[in-house]
Amino acid sequence: MESMAFIFTGIGSIIALVFSFLKFKSVHNAPEGTPEMARISKWVSDGANAYLKRQYAGVAIFLAVVFAAMICMAFAGMLSWFTPFAFLTGAFFSGLAGFVGMRTATMANCRTANAASKSLNSGLRVAFDAGTVMGFTVVGLGLLDLTIWYFILNAAFAALPVAERLTEITANMLTFGMGASSMALFARVGGGIFTKAADVGADLVGKVEAGIPEDDPRNPAVIADNVGDNVGDVAGMGADLYESYVGSIISTAALAVAAGYSVQGVALPMFIAALGVVASLVGTFFIKTEEGASQRNLLKALRTGTYISAVLIAVIAFVAIKVLLPEHMGIYVAVFAGLVAGVIIGAMTEYYTSDTYKPTQKLAESSETGSATIVISGLSLGMLSTVGPVIVVGIAVLVAFFCSKGATGGFAQGLYGVGVAAVGMLSTLGITLATDAYGPIADNAGGIAEMTGMDPQVRERTDALDSLGNTTAATGKGFAIGSAALTALALMVSYINKVGQINPDFKFNLAIDNPIVLVGLFIGGMLPFLFASLTMSAVGEAAQSIVVEVRRQFKEIPGLLEGKGEPDYATCVDMCTRSAQKLMVAPALVAVAVPVIVGLIMGPDGVVAMLAGNTVTGFVLAVMMSNAGGAWDNAKKYIEAGNFGGKGSENHKAAVVGDTVGDPFKDTSGPAINILIKLCSTVSIVFAGLVVAMHLL
Amino acid sequence: MESMAFIFTGIGSIIALVFSFLKFKSVHNAPEGTPEMARISKWVSDGANAYLKRQYAGVAIFLAVVFAAMICMAFAGMLSWFTPFAFLTGAFFSGLAGFVGMRTATMANCRTANAASKSLNSGLRVAFDAGTVMGFTVVGLGLLDLTIWYFILNAAFAALPVAERLTEITANMLTFGMGASSMALFARVGGGIFTKAADVGADLVGKVEAGIPEDDPRNPAVIADNVGDNVGDVAGMGADLYESYVGSIISTAALAVAAGYSVQGVALPMFIAALGVVASLVGTFFIKTEEGASQRNLLKALRTGTYISAVLIAVIAFVAIKVLLPEHMGIYVAVFAGLVAGVIIGAMTEYYTSDTYKPTQKLAESSETGSATIVISGLSLGMLSTVGPVIVVGIAVLVAFFCSKGATGGFAQGLYGVGVAAVGMLSTLGITLATDAYGPIADNAGGIAEMTGMDPQVRERTDALDSLGNTTAATGKGFAIGSAALTALALMVSYINKVGQINPDFKFNLAIDNPIVLVGLFIGGMLPFLFASLTMSAVGEAAQSIVVEVRRQFKEIPGLLEGKGEPDYATCVDMCTRSAQKLMVAPALVAVAVPVIVGLIMGPDGVVAMLAGNTVTGFVLAVMMSNAGGAWDNAKKYIEAGNFGGKGSENHKAAVVGDTVGDPFKDTSGPAINILIKLCSTVSIVFAGLVVAMHLL
Repeated sequence: MESMAFIFTGIGSIIALVFSFLKFKSVHNAPEGTPEMARISKWVSDGANAYLKRQYAGVAIFLAVVFAAMICMAFAGMLSWFTPFAFLTGAFFSGLAGFVGMRTATMANCRTANAASKSLNSGLRVAFDAGTVMGFTVVGLGLLDLTIWYFILNAAFAALPVAERLTEITANMLTFGMGASSMALFARVGGGIFTKAADVGADLVGKVEAGIPEDDPRNPAVIADNVGDNVGDVAGMGADLYESYVGSIISTAALAVAAGYSVQGVALPMFIAALGVVASLVGTFFIKTEEGASQRNLLKALRTGTYISAVLIAVIAFVAIKVLLPEHMGIYVAVFAGLVAGVIIGAMTEYYTSDTYKPTQKLAESSETGSATIVISGLSLGMLSTVGPVIVVGIAVLVAFFCSKGATGGFAQGLYGVGVAAVGMLSTLGITLATDAYGPIADNAGGIAEMTGMDPQVRERTDALDSLGNTTAATGKGFAIGSAALTALALMVSYINKVGQINPDFKFNLAIDNPIVLVGLFIGGMLPFLFASLTMSAVGEAAQSIVVEVRRQFKEIPGLLEGKGEPDYATCVDMCTRSAQKLMVAPALVAVAVPVIVGLIMGPDGVVAMLAGNTVTGFVLAVMMSNAGGAWDNAKKYIEAGNFGGKGSENHKAAVVGDTVGDPFKDTSGPAINILIKLCSTVSIVFAGLVVAMHLL
Repeated sequence: MESMAFIFTGIGSIIALVFSFLKFKSVHNAPEGTPEMARISKWVSDGANAYLKRQYAGVAIFLAVVFAAMICMAFAGMLSWFTPFAFLTGAFFSGLAGFVGMRTATMANCRTANAASKSLNSGLRVAFDAGTVMGFTVVGLGLLDLTIWYFILNAAFAALPVAERLTEITANMLTFGMGASSMALFARVGGGIFTKAADVGADLVGKVEAGIPEDDPRNPAVIADNVGDNVGDVAGMGADLYESYVGSIISTAALAVAAGYSVQGVALPMFIAALGVVASLVGTFFIKTEEGASQRNLLKALRTGTYISAVLIAVIAFVAIKVLLPEHMGIYVAVFAGLVAGVIIGAMTEYYTSDTYKPTQKLAESSETGSATIVISGLSLGMLSTVGPVIVVGIAVLVAFFCSKGATGGFAQGLYGVGVAAVGMLSTLGITLATDAYGPIADNAGGIAEMTGMDPQVRERTDALDSLGNTTAATGKGFAIGSAALTALALMVSYINKVGQINPDFKFNLAIDNPIVLVGLFIGGMLPFLFASLTMSAVGEAAQSIVVEVRRQFKEIPGLLEGKGEPDYATCVDMCTRSAQKLMVAPALVAVAVPVIVGLIMGPDGVVAMLAGNTVTGFVLAVMMSNAGGAWDNAKKYIEAGNFGGKGSENHKAAVVGDTVGDPFKDTSGPAINILIKLCSTVSIVFAGLVVAMHLL
């Protein structure tokens, strides 16, 4: 039965990939529009390609170093020989997921603009199809890799008894997760620096100093800005969610062993994920729109699809658990709790960030007294918005734990339930990611419409799609952050189990009044702040160089501002690439080096505490930064829609300041913290052997 | 011997109070200056008095409610009958410390301005003497109360065996701490809202809209702004540090019982604090300045005094421990670790916030690209500045723990050492608070000089004093925050011990992988964000109303802006008072209600975890907010000193935005978080009986 479940997982992945390919074809077949549109689109896609090529080359160095270190550890008998390769494949596929998404997005931007010239709905169709490619590529690749690795490792360790075999399998798969997280971190941080440096740089000189509109072709940073959308918001997000998805599945599978659920327990998360593919696929067919639908109706259409998928998975998961672990139906409650928690956090995020609700409207109003007050109010809003998600995650953890534990089960069974809740939350990723990924595509389409001087109506339509995308992106971020917290907890427990496997004599003292634990909590709690600081100042530094370059071009290229000269787009793209490349190193090092250093000094107790502190503060800070950023963005849009003085007013200027502060919040630091907390966990797990063998305290 | 130690503590307190009184006399005897100066000074002091009266009346309601609840619990046998009264006295004396400081400060402002008209050094002398009054009143009252309560409780429980008697004594003294924290919270939050609402309101309309200088008498909010300095930065700080001081001593004394150190262990923290009085007193005599000293020399003079006190206490503490606990000299290392950690954190704070160092200069430079980038850079700076203090506190905790534990001691002995480290850090509070409190006095003196149209040279001198005050205030905040973290840890352990006393059968499961603990950590980690959000939005809301009022007066009072009309200062003062009064309720409720609610739902495990999460995130967030705020303030001053375009330039405007964002950071939310983390702990301890008797999970 259980190998049936793995085979079904494989089938699920193939369904996802085939569906994704079909959608890719349909986007590809849409007309590109005028030659000028195609030309600009090509600039953007060339820039994005060039950036990704460089980024991957840079990451390759990092991967090679870690790979070498792992090989050494394998020689020392601290790791299995599969581990280094699992690590590499994880990184490869995470990067691939981002790459496919980016290619599709750069292909779709001019096609979306062209379709939007027909109608709002045609535009939505193309953009959403492109988003679907990304969503289903991520889940398809994720499931495919997990299935293949499972069968390889199962065969390799066939000689071992079941329990030990599963331990080996899941241990290697966790390394796969570390590879995926590493790539995701670089993609999110590098891409995030690129996109926001270009965005902020273009805005500061173009909009604020020179007074030309956004996406104006005279602005030398405008292509870089559009490239940024693709490498940060698309490729970065793809790599990120690939990591979240496989991370939640792997960490749960690893807990199954400790819980004594054997192969069925390992199979369950994959099986639920595979069923989620089907549920998501069905959901996409419900996203239908009528001609002339209002924005509210469009949103409703998107939501219908997502909710139908959620309901479907809630039903099929019951069957799945009935089949695999019929005596532990409490686990079903965990899946359900995860699903519901994800939906509620998404709704809360929307409440705090959408301009159809009070908080963002009040934020827009605070622009009346200038930029300082809108900044203060935005920070305050972001901080307040953390309360709900914390409580929801808390309830989900407790419900998942106590129900999975049941009357008869123990601690380990309860913790397995927490992992399953994360899988439940991400099971509909295919469709939630699709609704999330189409936003930047619409944004880019708007850029192309602006640059090629299309009918202003087209820009209005793409703006409507983009603004709708902000809302769905908020929902998507809710899922990503919530699942990250649950996954990080599962990984933390996996670490504890792993140490127990390495050295059964090691005695943990994880009590919170143990000074080592307290200090670990402090260090972990500080990490997200350090990480956010590094990423934000990276954006600032990179943006600074773009500002200088754009000012130079405005001054030195004759007739540029009058529309007679030709700006040098490539230099800006190149500068962003180089800045991102250089500045992503420090944050990445923090995520990789700190867990090892803490481990070597404070031992496994300190590591667990550090992971806990990191997860807690990271979750709260990430929610705060994402929501504050989203709210500032939409407050600005709300003013631009004619409220509180409208475009060009003093209020609008204040709101632009808020939005600019929010840019690195929501698109660089906030989402990257998600990955940070998981990467720290997987790094700790991989280097557990080293830490157990030698630590100071 | 040990009762000698308590008697010596009493003597130390009397020395402090007498010294304080002498300094008060010397400030009082300084000439007031012109009748106009006296008149303005009277407005300020009347406003401050009126505010404090109202605040204390408001707090009285809160105190009455808690007192009544405690009486009920005493009836139910959950608390001793002394507890409610200990609670009230703690609140009373915390308020008194603030009140004395405020009275001295409002008396000193015109005298400082007048003295500054003679020379920079005379000005410093008066302001610093007034600060000394505050510093020594706080420590004197603190020690006096502790001594008296100790003797009362010792007599009341004389019938009990030593160990039980000490348990009763320390339990009641912890309630004293809760009273002090409650008052401190209201004082910090209420005063913080008042001062920043007035400051932001005055600046936004006066400086930004009407273009009149700071502290211009035509600005109707100018008196409110000066009142705010006294009720927030002085009275609030006094209550705050009174609470920190007694809190660290009490929590350590409580740990002595569990550590088996008996009366000697209880006496030690008080004894060290009393010795600190002497050390501080000696230190003040080294603060001498020559005529015509540069600012750098002034700072050096202040530092010399502080460092001499620190060295002195480092020496005498050795003797104290030799006398009281000669077999546990490892504790001395804990005192030393605390002292050194305090000095290092102070120095780090200075590095990040003083414009003589790179970070603040670079922050000022980031104003070149506008207000958004200076905000981003300031946030990034604040976040980065948390790394050092976290590591220093971590090392101090580990050193204090392992050295106090020694080869023979156990867990409880080690934790006692952590408490002693906090006492060591705060032992020189007399002098550090004096150097801290004089800043707002100099600020006010500058206001009076401006309003009475004194020679611009006087304003220059008070500005120099004020700017120096920013630096010393940063050092003071370093001590306050560092000691808060250590004290909170000690209180957390006291809570665990308390629960053990109430119900010896209660089995803690504080392991960090217990879901209750995890969820508690999440909730605790979110609290400082919620609290910061509430306090920041309170400042925003209150400032908003001031903006409206000032605009109204500018419009409706004829000839006001031309200097012919008379502004209505009283209305602004009154509005600030009412806003502060109203808006301080919600944050205070959070601090008091959440620990009880969490306890009733999740039980003692959840409470401990919540306290840990709260301490960790609170520490990091408080450091971040205080330092970012300080750096923005000094970056603005750096530009005003003629760098990057100087006063009135676009850069300066951007820096003003940063400074305004930083105002609630450094003077409202940041310092109040310090109190939040300790109030949550003491509330939990007081209501432990209730929680142990009835909790859900």
